[in-house]
Amino acid sequence: MTLKIGFILFPNLTQLDLTGPYEVLSHIPESQVHLIWREQGPVKADTGMQIVADTTFDACPQLDIVCVPGGPGQMDVMDDAEVLDFLRQQAKTAQYITSVCTGSLLLGAAGLLDGYKATTHWAAIDLLAAYGATYEKGRVVRDGNRVTAAGVSAGIDFALSLVAELKGEDFAKTLQLAIEYDPHPPFQSGHPECADPSITAVVRTFMKDALEKRQAQAKAYQDQKES
Amino acid sequence: MTLKIGFILFPNLTQLDLTGPYEVLSHIPESQVHLIWREQGPVKADTGMQIVADTTFDACPQLDIVCVPGGPGQMDVMDDAEVLDFLRQQAKTAQYITSVCTGSLLLGAAGLLDGYKATTHWAAIDLLAAYGATYEKGRVVRDGNRVTAAGVSAGIDFALSLVAELKGEDFAKTLQLAIEYDPHPPFQSGHPECADPSITAVVRTFMKDALEKRQAQAKAYQDQKES
Repeated sequence: MTLKIGFILFPNLTQLDLTGPYEVLSHIPESQVHLIWREQGPVKADTGMQIVADTTFDACPQLDIVCVPGGPGQMDVMDDAEVLDFLRQQAKTAQYITSVCTGSLLLGAAGLLDGYKATTHWAAIDLLAAYGATYEKGRVVRDGNRVTAAGVSAGIDFALSLVAELKGEDFAKTLQLAIEYDPHPPFQSGHPECADPSITAVVRTFMKDALEKRQAQAKAYQDQKES
Repeated sequence: MTLKIGFILFPNLTQLDLTGPYEVLSHIPESQVHLIWREQGPVKADTGMQIVADTTFDACPQLDIVCVPGGPGQMDVMDDAEVLDFLRQQAKTAQYITSVCTGSLLLGAAGLLDGYKATTHWAAIDLLAAYGATYEKGRVVRDGNRVTAAGVSAGIDFALSLVAELKGEDFAKTLQLAIEYDPHPPFQSGHPECADPSITAVVRTFMKDALEKRQAQAKAYQDQKES
């Protein structure tokens, strides 16, 4: 049976959230990967790269793995009924409901993280609680069939973990070797726990507007739920 | 002055070779990234993902950074006069001539690694010598203005190193933190030096046909040069 994998490909996404795990997951034998949006055709990432959506929400089959990337565009679809309904429908039967980076906030907005442990980009972890999720530290957090990954590049670690679950550790290891995933970051600056505080401050300043918007959206979600 | 960065986007490339460094380099302030092919429009990667080429060879400005990704499609352009001429022309004035994975073999075919230290995907390192290059161990190898990266995921390490050179270590560190590049591979299997030999054997078998084709191309290049 074909393993059906689908990524939501919304405008203004952070493309590496998607392209990292895509590279790994697409090598699962007898898998089929869908890049899903309202209409088929090029979708522009936050950096300008255009990736082609090949499957519409309507035409998308029931997926075995749903993956939601993050990035600035995630904020624009937090109230999008078509996107939220699609995720809720898929979640009813999907084997795994997953996200990378702030994609977890979109899963949250669809009500799909309520009661689950989860993670997200380090700058957004405080927002998970508003969606009923409990932040858990980790590059990849698994709770039931929810698998959420930390920021951007964590999608590669996430995908390799998922492949190990689905196809065994040996197969995951062959993929890791094939993509020579033997990372040597030139600096110790990939997480606030190891980064220089002045560097963290710069990134926080850079992300300030987005964080405020995401906070307002989290509050609105919570207010609506409580009313 | 705008920093002009260009990636060759050939059919059947390994998309993460390109999308990894693109994510990093595109965040350099006042930079412009070109995805370059014969014609504008979608180009299909080896996994089926389609990325849009936005710049043709003819319309491409002189670049400051030229980057050549790898993947199966690299073999199909090793004799392609349009591609090779483009690389040679760009190399005359580019500040950096770079590659990820087997993209280095294409740089080699264009005569651009002759006399340089370089690296490539671990399965292809023996082929560099045919192009006059000397293999050097390393995730990222710099020699003069040639910067070559190891397989696929090494493109992220490469791009962060390049950003550090161009814009300083602090800026590179902010980008590393922004993409939460704090990798935790689930296994120690990213390089033959740490992978289980049986896993390496599986990947070598999987890559056998490609390796034989690349060997034949390397021999043909050498024969032509010596004749």
